[in-house]
Amino acid sequence: MLLSQIHEPNDLKKYSVDELDSIAMEIRQFLIQKLSATGGHLAPNLGVVELTLALHYCYNSPDDKFIFDVGHQAYVHKILTGRMDQFDTLRKYKGLSGFVKRNESEHDVWEAGHSSTSLSAAMGMALARDLKGGTNKVVAIIGDGALTGGMAFEAMNHIGHEKKNLMVVLNDNEMSIAPNVGAMHNYLSKIRSDRTYLRAKDEVELLLKKIPAIGDKLAKTAANLKDSLKYMIMNGVLFEELGFTYLGPVDGHDLPKLIEAFKQADNVTGPVLVHVLTTKGKGYSPAEADSHKWHGISPYKIESGQVLKAVGNPMYTEVFGQTLIELAEQDPRIVAVTPAMPGGSGLLKFADKFPGRMIDVGIAEQHAATMCAALAMEGMKPVYAVYSTFMQRAYDQIVHDICRHNANVMFAIDRAGFVGADGETHQGVYDISFMRHIPNIVMMMPKDENELRHMMKTALEYNDGPIAYRYPRTNVLGVPMDAELVPIPIGTWEKVREGDGVAILAVGTMVQVAEEAADQLKREGIQAAVINARFIKPLDESMLLELAKTHGKMIVIEESSIAGGLGSAILEFYAQQGISGLDIRLMGVPDKFIEHGSIKEQCQEVGLTVEALTQQVQKLRNDHHFAFGKKTLPS
Amino acid sequence: MLLSQIHEPNDLKKYSVDELDSIAMEIRQFLIQKLSATGGHLAPNLGVVELTLALHYCYNSPDDKFIFDVGHQAYVHKILTGRMDQFDTLRKYKGLSGFVKRNESEHDVWEAGHSSTSLSAAMGMALARDLKGGTNKVVAIIGDGALTGGMAFEAMNHIGHEKKNLMVVLNDNEMSIAPNVGAMHNYLSKIRSDRTYLRAKDEVELLLKKIPAIGDKLAKTAANLKDSLKYMIMNGVLFEELGFTYLGPVDGHDLPKLIEAFKQADNVTGPVLVHVLTTKGKGYSPAEADSHKWHGISPYKIESGQVLKAVGNPMYTEVFGQTLIELAEQDPRIVAVTPAMPGGSGLLKFADKFPGRMIDVGIAEQHAATMCAALAMEGMKPVYAVYSTFMQRAYDQIVHDICRHNANVMFAIDRAGFVGADGETHQGVYDISFMRHIPNIVMMMPKDENELRHMMKTALEYNDGPIAYRYPRTNVLGVPMDAELVPIPIGTWEKVREGDGVAILAVGTMVQVAEEAADQLKREGIQAAVINARFIKPLDESMLLELAKTHGKMIVIEESSIAGGLGSAILEFYAQQGISGLDIRLMGVPDKFIEHGSIKEQCQEVGLTVEALTQQVQKLRNDHHFAFGKKTLPS
Repeated sequence: MLLSQIHEPNDLKKYSVDELDSIAMEIRQFLIQKLSATGGHLAPNLGVVELTLALHYCYNSPDDKFIFDVGHQAYVHKILTGRMDQFDTLRKYKGLSGFVKRNESEHDVWEAGHSSTSLSAAMGMALARDLKGGTNKVVAIIGDGALTGGMAFEAMNHIGHEKKNLMVVLNDNEMSIAPNVGAMHNYLSKIRSDRTYLRAKDEVELLLKKIPAIGDKLAKTAANLKDSLKYMIMNGVLFEELGFTYLGPVDGHDLPKLIEAFKQADNVTGPVLVHVLTTKGKGYSPAEADSHKWHGISPYKIESGQVLKAVGNPMYTEVFGQTLIELAEQDPRIVAVTPAMPGGSGLLKFADKFPGRMIDVGIAEQHAATMCAALAMEGMKPVYAVYSTFMQRAYDQIVHDICRHNANVMFAIDRAGFVGADGETHQGVYDISFMRHIPNIVMMMPKDENELRHMMKTALEYNDGPIAYRYPRTNVLGVPMDAELVPIPIGTWEKVREGDGVAILAVGTMVQVAEEAADQLKREGIQAAVINARFIKPLDESMLLELAKTHGKMIVIEESSIAGGLGSAILEFYAQQGISGLDIRLMGVPDKFIEHGSIKEQCQEVGLTVEALTQQVQKLRNDHHFAFGKKTLPS
Repeated sequence: MLLSQIHEPNDLKKYSVDELDSIAMEIRQFLIQKLSATGGHLAPNLGVVELTLALHYCYNSPDDKFIFDVGHQAYVHKILTGRMDQFDTLRKYKGLSGFVKRNESEHDVWEAGHSSTSLSAAMGMALARDLKGGTNKVVAIIGDGALTGGMAFEAMNHIGHEKKNLMVVLNDNEMSIAPNVGAMHNYLSKIRSDRTYLRAKDEVELLLKKIPAIGDKLAKTAANLKDSLKYMIMNGVLFEELGFTYLGPVDGHDLPKLIEAFKQADNVTGPVLVHVLTTKGKGYSPAEADSHKWHGISPYKIESGQVLKAVGNPMYTEVFGQTLIELAEQDPRIVAVTPAMPGGSGLLKFADKFPGRMIDVGIAEQHAATMCAALAMEGMKPVYAVYSTFMQRAYDQIVHDICRHNANVMFAIDRAGFVGADGETHQGVYDISFMRHIPNIVMMMPKDENELRHMMKTALEYNDGPIAYRYPRTNVLGVPMDAELVPIPIGTWEKVREGDGVAILAVGTMVQVAEEAADQLKREGIQAAVINARFIKPLDESMLLELAKTHGKMIVIEESSIAGGLGSAILEFYAQQGISGLDIRLMGVPDKFIEHGSIKEQCQEVGLTVEALTQQVQKLRNDHHFAFGKKTLPS
């Protein structure tokens, strides 16, 4: 094993390129072996083995900065920077992160879980270097999918203008998570394969010499022509037009060619883009054959490629996808829009069934949102299916284009709440806080899959503006399902059980937690009311007024940021109504970023458990709380 | 006057193209005349007179959809669609909006105040049309500045892929508000002027015929070459690569040529981009000479072009710009970053003084934010100078790249609060609500210009993560200025005056309102405490605990959304501390979009005035408010 002798990138440099090839093979075996037990982003990392090796071979990290766009393809980088022995803990609580992580290594200089940030980061680091008079290299490694995100274009536009020295490695595997869509993708495909683009430089030069000199005017044209041709015989005209020097395409599994390309790039002044062609899943045939499935994978059997999935209920995502098909069969106005997540959002069957009504816009959350507004204004009923964390990209478009127009857009917000192993960059714990202050929006979250289906019907029948339903990244509860879908009156909560003085107001996943806590409290003789606060906006004001008469003590519990959350909305309501004297506590996600682990561990970390809730109710009941006038403060 | 006979676009169609030219002249006179009294976006609208006429001449609005990107260049469209007689009320309270407005006319199909939304809107409308089997045209009119916003690229990438029939009119005037930056701008400039791009089609065709036939291999190369050349002799290769048919450039002040271009575009299948060259301010020499200044202009004298400005204190923006220069002289780490607003953000003098340290990234709020994170991580102290409303575009980058990295980015949030005549698309009333739930951020707002300067010093000396100061779009108060800048301890409020039972907690602009209300109340014998709650996050927890002992009644007042605002943060704090029994009311911007008018009128509309606050205090003092246990609710 050569690999076991590599503890930091410098150790690589004593090897020949041939030996690097052996190391590449060892890395692949290591990844296939380790991830078979832990799961993780196998296919993307198998695709960048040689690329990562070549980068560390040619440059000097951490002086030279490697910025991995969406840090999930940095496993090879982690192996080469001394973290090989931590792979058994990959993506586990307190274990090795599945993403680039600054507190793991000085070689990790930029963290990202959302795509398309690397070019902006590279530009910032190049600017800082030049202002400080440094000479280090800055290298952004970005996939062809991530390149289509709007902010990557904003960065290219700026980089191409400022002409700073920096290198962009375009890791082109024709995939983001799903196969890519978009004109940029079509363009890159042409470079890869179209004969009109693969021109032989020498032949053209020869031909040019044969053009006869024919008068002044034509000679001038011919000269211009030669300029144009020189430019055309290079690939990558689009990048050249944007101010980059384009090199490539380069076979991303050919180490000598990669190393040569980086040497060439080093001689370029100004921004340079090296177009590298890689194969996702390279070297492991099941992953090569279906790189979409093997993008992020559960533990598997190495020989057969059989994925070891825990048996369990379906995910909420699947219930959403199936229900949307049922609704779309009856209502031709329904159009599903996804920003590059057709599979993750449960829309593949929908797309099969209704071609033309499932619109994958690529990694383009902003465009998707605004396009939905326009679709709605023209009488369609668009469903914007998006993960909570990625919807953050569309905040302005939700305010400015959807809510301000009061457009009938339906939001299907998936992965709301904790997301588990992807960790802090992906947590869906802010959407309530960044949406509920926007005028016109209606926001719901179901307590179970049966209610989700009713909410989807509710959204479809609602025609007074935008309406959102959010659901978690978990298996459904397995409750009985109603045959008929009935709209829920807007702004009505459900009293799940009666109480005698203390009430738990829970939303979504926390309703089950509240019921279990109430069961336990009942055994102790405490009757806690449980409210399914299924509308985050508007609130059920009459139920809140009623509760204020009967329940002096309340706990609001949500798997979401406390700041600006549902609890905060309830406090605002009581304040505006002039109702005080109530003793209300908020349980939710505190004011910090929560790292990777299982969803259960994340809930435990912040106290969103049956035990914590039970204790909080007991404490609140026994609390002789401070009230104004007593002039004493609580301890 | 021909213009007086045009009440709707169809009325245009009876005129000859020569007569249209006369109408264009009348429109210019009308605009120059009317805006001399009201002010408004003069230069952009003078630039699109012929373009708008040609569009309405060639197409049938509202069946055909005109989508104006950033609707401030739709004055001509308003004139041609029956709103000529409302121009005396332009941008005034309850008057004609300065932007496209759906409730003004059926010809206004898409509203926008933020840039770069038009292509997404056009795509949505084209998709809806095709799903419904319609045949109408969809036309987006977008400036070259707006084209560089990331979401416009996301839309282009999608449009070029889906090949829907729609037309993009690129209104290229080399300006957004400020002169454009960016590689796209450089590219468009080349098309306009570079000889290597302006190839004579005929000459090249002739030359190609002269290429001798010389063996099979070269013949094949020659054939490929001809293909390439056919492609190269067209301009707009970048757009062609992205799947558009490119037509142009066309002189945007030449009606026959515009009409011909649109006819040509009608024969294209799939997306077509018509590149139109216009001159901002066309036909009014002061505006042509300085279109930056005349982009949005106050009332002026027509003959001299002299702008009639109200005499008054400088704006907060100017104090920011001047103070930043002072700080930057002492601290070379300071870098100012602006998304295309160097003038509006008060950074022009800074740029003169520190070339290379003022970075204008173009309309690219997302890229700007992420680049700031990287600058900070490399030891710089970037100031992200941005309007509150435009910062909405960077919400995800603030969460994911700045706050999660805990990067030392300083935010200078300008135009926080109401913005006046620009109206609902530009109101800066959400930044508190969309930022305060993000971990690690510190947020401040000064009560006056002197405190703003201290806050800027505070931010500079703070090195524990991101920190923001926000300030309004108003003149400063004219208070005495401290000579020395002293950092304010993080999370400390200021007790402006003592009270005896009722306290007003005010932030920013509302501190002055609170002081005036307290003066008035004092005359009535009521001592209201006034707190300058200058830190929105973190709160001054010890002052809040102290207030809870002494002041049972509090009013929190902020020129910002109540939902998720400062008041909400205070309620959350007391709840989590187990402190109840306090009677707290929130005053701020209610849950609706507030339309154009003066800032004063907007404050009056929502009750953010001395009178309203005084009444609220009186009411609260006399209120025998509901408290739990009494079993009665307030009326």
